[in-house]
Amino acid sequence: MRYRTVLFSPANMPSRVNRLLEAGSDVVVLDLEDGVGLEQKAAARAALRDFAAELRQKGAGLGVFARINDVRSEFYEEDLSALGPELNGVVLPKTEQASDLADLRRTLSERGLSDFQVMAGVETALGVFNVATFLDGGLADAVYFGAEDFTADMGGLRSREGTEVLYARSQVALAARIRSVVAIDQIVADFEDDELYRLDARFGRSLGYVGKLCIHPRQVALAREAFTPTARELEDARALLVAFDEGLASGAGVIRFRGQMIDEPLAKRAAAIVALAAADQTHGGRP
Amino acid sequence: MRYRTVLFSPANMPSRVNRLLEAGSDVVVLDLEDGVGLEQKAAARAALRDFAAELRQKGAGLGVFARINDVRSEFYEEDLSALGPELNGVVLPKTEQASDLADLRRTLSERGLSDFQVMAGVETALGVFNVATFLDGGLADAVYFGAEDFTADMGGLRSREGTEVLYARSQVALAARIRSVVAIDQIVADFEDDELYRLDARFGRSLGYVGKLCIHPRQVALAREAFTPTARELEDARALLVAFDEGLASGAGVIRFRGQMIDEPLAKRAAAIVALAAADQTHGGRP
Amino acid sequence: MRYRTVLFSPANMPSRVNRLLEAGSDVVVLDLEDGVGLEQKAAARAALRDFAAELRQKGAGLGVFARINDVRSEFYEEDLSALGPELNGVVLPKTEQASDLADLRRTLSERGLSDFQVMAGVETALGVFNVATFLDGGLADAVYFGAEDFTADMGGLRSREGTEVLYARSQVALAARIRSVVAIDQIVADFEDDELYRLDARFGRSLGYVGKLCIHPRQVALAREAFTPTARELEDARALLVAFDEGLASGAGVIRFRGQMIDEPLAKRAAAIVALAAADQTHGGRP
Repeated sequence: MRYRTVLFSPANMPSRVNRLLEAGSDVVVLDLEDGVGLEQKAAARAALRDFAAELRQKGAGLGVFARINDVRSEFYEEDLSALGPELNGVVLPKTEQASDLADLRRTLSERGLSDFQVMAGVETALGVFNVATFLDGGLADAVYFGAEDFTADMGGLRSREGTEVLYARSQVALAARIRSVVAIDQIVADFEDDELYRLDARFGRSLGYVGKLCIHPRQVALAREAFTPTARELEDARALLVAFDEGLASGAGVIRFRGQMIDEPLAKRAAAIVALAAADQTHGGRP
Repeated sequence: MRYRTVLFSPANMPSRVNRLLEAGSDVVVLDLEDGVGLEQKAAARAALRDFAAELRQKGAGLGVFARINDVRSEFYEEDLSALGPELNGVVLPKTEQASDLADLRRTLSERGLSDFQVMAGVETALGVFNVATFLDGGLADAVYFGAEDFTADMGGLRSREGTEVLYARSQVALAARIRSVVAIDQIVADFEDDELYRLDARFGRSLGYVGKLCIHPRQVALAREAFTPTARELEDARALLVAFDEGLASGAGVIRFRGQMIDEPLAKRAAAIVALAAADQTHGGRP
Repeated sequence: MRYRTVLFSPANMPSRVNRLLEAGSDVVVLDLEDGVGLEQKAAARAALRDFAAELRQKGAGLGVFARINDVRSEFYEEDLSALGPELNGVVLPKTEQASDLADLRRTLSERGLSDFQVMAGVETALGVFNVATFLDGGLADAVYFGAEDFTADMGGLRSREGTEVLYARSQVALAARIRSVVAIDQIVADFEDDELYRLDARFGRSLGYVGKLCIHPRQVALAREAFTPTARELEDARALLVAFDEGLASGAGVIRFRGQMIDEPLAKRAAAIVALAAADQTHGGRP
């Protein structure tokens, strides 16, 4: 499963099927949590499986997840019973401890859904504090950092630059890496500001995130672009690797390349860029 | 007890009573530690209780604390014996481990001061490292991050932007949140630079701090302003909540509001701003 | 041993002896790891001890280390057997857990090299996560943060500003401080950009690092300058201390000095600057 772009939609709006598919996201998350008002929770649960089935039928290879309400909410049990094999996975928001994930996995197993992908939302102070602990044990496949909820929980304020969440956002990426879990970057609430989305996504990629949450279809193309090596990056990476391999062949472990000393770690970063671009080709360049 | 503004004064300067009161701080801390030279330590201890009594008598609702010297200093025992019921609480600087707070609480209890508020200073490398541990157990009510001492202990340098303490300052705010302890932000040493104070306070609020240390009476108004929602913030928050409630009423969990997608966490942040402003009214708008 | 400047050179290039000595670094590290290609590993091991002997003979007081390959690499054992008493110490890259250092110390002891200095490289996600743990126990004397390897391991990207490694770089400095280990700052790969080196070094010093890695001889002078108090800094520090001492003599613990409130922590930082400059004089101002 690929997680470069993860697009959210309320689960009670199946009329959006085509709009969601056209966005070309790797994953669509049908939301039963914050995206759905109290009055519509039941309708959203009722619509979920058919909505998912239609998405998967029309969108070849598309991942379709449901975001349920968190373990401590009153909706958790009912949300769980709304899940079915039409989905590929489930998103557990506000994950705070290992037992949250263990409970979820047990229920999925009981319901014959043990092949589900599980994405954990880290978006509370306690979740950020415990993230390396609860990702240990392999119960989650992916994790996202939720900057808006985290800041609300901290009683803080969000800024355009996002320095106020740098510590938490870095900690989540690090924990994901040491636990071999896919790390997905925060949303950008201002969905009309493409420049902000690009900057925020670029920086998320710098931190080691491999994909990004999208709260509007128009953000999908921006996320895909930001988390895909550019033609220039790819060309530079290839040229660096050629020069580095020539150096190795002549016995050097370090080469000079365009004013930099290039050794193993920089060559590895270049190789990762080439690999990412190659994987893209394999995926057939879904728009 | 409210901690939006916490003003320090040497304990040996009771002539400053009126100046301190006029500043209108929520808390005044009478300092026996760094603010008092060796030669004056005894005089400061001797003056402490009368100074505190006068402050509390004239300043209705004012919190008056003493900052004693740290547990590992030679002055700790004598400072403790100078405390009395004229004070509301005590500040323990350079807190580094749970036993520091346990020792303090035991002594307070023995001296009939078990209703004291305890504010822990986190301002050494070890203190920052251990903060989540020693705040577990409920022995402290509030915590401040001391950037100057921390940087001195690290052997680092302070900059105007403060990026060098972002990690530590973020870690202290996070630990305070998960342990339900009030978090108070660092000082600004340059007491003539109002612009710097405003920027630093605004960013402290972004990180989740609820108040700020003041080392000069003129900083109190700046801190109060920075940690109080502005009229514009309040108006925006109220408008957002009205729109969000209308959305909920019509079944939507997400609304569009001024170019943003607004869901539960953003609505929560708006509600927190309204609540903060309302609490302010209740406190009678002390100047 | 002093670690203000730590200059790397491939171990298979003994012809560089004079160039390395002229740079005037505190420590030279002869690299068997990333700086040496596969084809030259054996030659580098063979050249190591003579290269080190010549450096130490001609460079009075110079520290000469070997960087071996990491514990999990295929070259580790052979690299260890290439070490000898001509060296002062060893650099263990990609340190991730306490047993990495314990294994190394045991082997050094068996080989009669128990007086070696050990410098641990922290440059993987797991290394950054575990750094405070594996530095506990006194098995390492110094530690460096390797931003390039760390970012490669995270799958991230490096920027000029380096915000993407702020969390990790801060965490390593903090862990080094609480474990009383010398902290050495990251490389700057772009060895022709002096301005970048200066900025990066200055910020490293702000975080508490006491020296910096150099990958080219020309970076040594830049690192030395950045990690040495300037004449202006020294003058300011001395003036501050004079004023502070006068304040203490008159019983004040806080003084006003050039628009700042100066108390103990700020005086300590000034004293540290004066001490650093004095130590420099003692070292005889090696160029």
